[in-house]
Amino acid sequence: MAAPHIPVPPGVSEADFADAVRQWKDIVGEPWVFTDEESVALYRDGYSPFWDEAEERVASAAIAPDATEQVQAIMRIAHEKRIPIYPISTGRNLGYGGSAPVLSGSVVLDLKRMNRVLEVSERNAYALVEPGVSYFDLYNTIEERGLKVWIDPPDPGWGSVVGNALDGGGGWTAYPFRDHFGAHCGMEVVLANGDLVRTGMGAISNSKTWQQNRWGYGPWVDGLFRQSNMGVVTKMGFHLMPRPDAYISGTATVQNEQDIVPLLDTLNLLENQHVVNGSTSIGAGGGPGGGAGGPRWTCTVPIYGPASVIRAQLDYAKAKFAQIPGSGWSETPLMTIPLTSEQMASVRQVSFAKPNLSTFSIGARSAFNPNPTSGHIWFSPIVPRTGEAMIEFYRFYQESLAEVTGGENLNFLGPIGLTNWERSLILMIMFPVTRDKAMNAKNVAAFRRWVELAGQRGWGEYRTAPAFMDDVAGTYDFNNHALRRLHETIKDGVDPNGIISAGRYGIWPKHIREA
Amino acid sequence: MAAPHIPVPPGVSEADFADAVRQWKDIVGEPWVFTDEESVALYRDGYSPFWDEAEERVASAAIAPDATEQVQAIMRIAHEKRIPIYPISTGRNLGYGGSAPVLSGSVVLDLKRMNRVLEVSERNAYALVEPGVSYFDLYNTIEERGLKVWIDPPDPGWGSVVGNALDGGGGWTAYPFRDHFGAHCGMEVVLANGDLVRTGMGAISNSKTWQQNRWGYGPWVDGLFRQSNMGVVTKMGFHLMPRPDAYISGTATVQNEQDIVPLLDTLNLLENQHVVNGSTSIGAGGGPGGGAGGPRWTCTVPIYGPASVIRAQLDYAKAKFAQIPGSGWSETPLMTIPLTSEQMASVRQVSFAKPNLSTFSIGARSAFNPNPTSGHIWFSPIVPRTGEAMIEFYRFYQESLAEVTGGENLNFLGPIGLTNWERSLILMIMFPVTRDKAMNAKNVAAFRRWVELAGQRGWGEYRTAPAFMDDVAGTYDFNNHALRRLHETIKDGVDPNGIISAGRYGIWPKHIREA
Repeated sequence: MAAPHIPVPPGVSEADFADAVRQWKDIVGEPWVFTDEESVALYRDGYSPFWDEAEERVASAAIAPDATEQVQAIMRIAHEKRIPIYPISTGRNLGYGGSAPVLSGSVVLDLKRMNRVLEVSERNAYALVEPGVSYFDLYNTIEERGLKVWIDPPDPGWGSVVGNALDGGGGWTAYPFRDHFGAHCGMEVVLANGDLVRTGMGAISNSKTWQQNRWGYGPWVDGLFRQSNMGVVTKMGFHLMPRPDAYISGTATVQNEQDIVPLLDTLNLLENQHVVNGSTSIGAGGGPGGGAGGPRWTCTVPIYGPASVIRAQLDYAKAKFAQIPGSGWSETPLMTIPLTSEQMASVRQVSFAKPNLSTFSIGARSAFNPNPTSGHIWFSPIVPRTGEAMIEFYRFYQESLAEVTGGENLNFLGPIGLTNWERSLILMIMFPVTRDKAMNAKNVAAFRRWVELAGQRGWGEYRTAPAFMDDVAGTYDFNNHALRRLHETIKDGVDPNGIISAGRYGIWPKHIREA
Repeated sequence: MAAPHIPVPPGVSEADFADAVRQWKDIVGEPWVFTDEESVALYRDGYSPFWDEAEERVASAAIAPDATEQVQAIMRIAHEKRIPIYPISTGRNLGYGGSAPVLSGSVVLDLKRMNRVLEVSERNAYALVEPGVSYFDLYNTIEERGLKVWIDPPDPGWGSVVGNALDGGGGWTAYPFRDHFGAHCGMEVVLANGDLVRTGMGAISNSKTWQQNRWGYGPWVDGLFRQSNMGVVTKMGFHLMPRPDAYISGTATVQNEQDIVPLLDTLNLLENQHVVNGSTSIGAGGGPGGGAGGPRWTCTVPIYGPASVIRAQLDYAKAKFAQIPGSGWSETPLMTIPLTSEQMASVRQVSFAKPNLSTFSIGARSAFNPNPTSGHIWFSPIVPRTGEAMIEFYRFYQESLAEVTGGENLNFLGPIGLTNWERSLILMIMFPVTRDKAMNAKNVAAFRRWVELAGQRGWGEYRTAPAFMDDVAGTYDFNNHALRRLHETIKDGVDPNGIISAGRYGIWPKHIREA
């Protein structure tokens, strides 16, 4: 069975929809409203584990406005006619839904044409951008103007700076900039009824500090637009990192299974002191307890800053790790920034603020992988940043593997331990998506079961793909899902006709909840 | 005219209120429901500029529960009977309303008995506390247990850790810990209808990372409970700073008025690089342009961390400031932490994580000040962190002074330039509150006019006392007060009977807005 073509959104009459399309064409121009099957198919999610199946989520139409006023006018019509709208920034968050809606038949509101870098301040180190601005765009603007500020790119550089932050994404440079939502400062949002809000200090008409002070006055509403469906973000500010003078990195190694405990305690101290500011990582090696040679665990600590400072910081880190019996240490030479093009070719570029697309080599055809995948989905629970939790997770993985996979080899990649969130640990397992429907179904079932089992241990996913949004929301169940009830109450208030991104992150509008 | 005694809350029948009081006594025990005039008077705001006048805001009664379940039960009754409730943590935020409600006749929900330090983790550097926990309480708990973590106290140490954070307060140690709301991680909240919500990772029943990952999954609602009236926070987590090894501080001086421009540009670079992490300050001296001797501006940069690291950081800062022609430099000797008791007696203790009450010497009777004040109110607009903005503010101050004061000496203190917010500058002017009603009226009028004039320039207050909450909210006027409309929409959804803290930060429930 193929993915359905949906000519009219659910719950909308043909006449109402035709009328809306006519009005939208007046607003954005005829070429920017897409209703033909071929154009709309471009919004399908190539990574969907339900590709070409009935469960695949597909759009009915798409609109690409060029200005905030157009977004407001579009929303007013959708609000009046109760037409489901699914805003996307650039729609490049592959693995998390891409440009396809959560509710099939929604009209994609594609903001890619709103791609203006509105401001970049080197003196105060911030940027104000529209949702269509990609990491490449912002990087190029900064390079062209010769400004000494860094962006923090995530793995795929073609994604939207706004979209990635709203989706809870992160990057690979220094704290606090690599927490993209956390590093934002100020938003402009179109609400479901077309009203236009600016948050934080931007709520003053003539504001001078919109990108300098995030909190403003009174309740801070920005969090409502994260991983959600409460509004359409049309501008967003970000704090940028002054370009650092230099970079250095060290790696501590330990020999025994239980050494992960002091290893992580040491890492926590260094990161919580902010002596180590780069995106650290934990590696599980083959040494004692791992069944082969070499160290059992490794911990890499990159540091950015002035040369003399990061030298002192790395020496301090080295001395702290040296207190673990049997530990080893190695380090990279200090590199002055900007790197030479030769150096740049030898490093992971995202760690040096340069966006690229090399991450897409994951799952690609190669000498080692003759059967390329069509994409992937990430199982990525947040666990405590302790050695005990790390060991518990690995045991959990081993013990539940046969149950969730039914004993089959489903070609997972992982688990990989990541510490690029401020205080917690993410353990990632990559599930391949292929064009083999039976295999995809097994992966989907395994993913769902693992979400459930991890939730029972108190470990939750930090984001997920549309196919699993309800499953993950189900694990956030304190007091019989009190947080979801609160989300729904807010949703019903700010989007009373329930038109924006129904189902996103498990939040459904009233008329669908009740149906 | 004296402040009115209000025996029954507005809009509530005597019978309903008597019934509620009876039920509340069953819940918390008779001694913890206060309705007699003398007990209720203890909740008056000693710093009110309307002391003993009709405009003074006073409570009708107070309840002091001891547990979250009691708060839930109290709120259910208030919700059912539409009784206005004003939750306070310890009610010690003098200058910002103390324990008195914004709406006269509200019942104060006093959470001071809920003063349990539920958890302090040294390994992962966080605390989980109830709202009645003061900075003294948390400090003492940490000292007793000998844990190597620091709290970040604001000036008055008797305040609530939760209350200060919710009110948008800040302290004096290192970034990012001194932004108290920003450093929190996870909340438990009782909603108006008595429902109980945990936010972030706490929304998983069995959560293991409530105080380690703040964002959780889906919309982040924590911001709604900042400076607001959307719920009653009953638990809150905070990231703590590992106790630093050492402290050092340097002061750069410049000679000319315009030197503030490179001085602040240099400071911004150092802070945005996180090379300087302490709470920096800018002083306006008497030198060229200031009408007397000495340097024109000073900038002090404290740094916390390992000894070798902060030495390298201060040297780097010194070299950066030295690039400003004519600048000077001085520094304190490096101090190892913990300080000796002798050292502790010579420093500002809040900068070394020790809460105290010495701030109350402001306005106290002394050889220099024979006429003590009864309190103060702060005018504290947020301006851009640039020298140009600093100069503009001082000009604005001089030019508007005669207008706002009517040419009288109202005994202001300030302006004082503070940079303890991450990226912006706060300029503070302290207005004394006395028992001279005519003088207070002039101060109130001057304050209101300055709020208005500053708002026209795009400068907004970051918090304020109840007497001025509507005035300040009025300056946040983008798109005809769109943010306030959004706040009201959310308020009407989460507190449909409008019972919590009516008027707080300019947000009024529907039935009062419409009346």
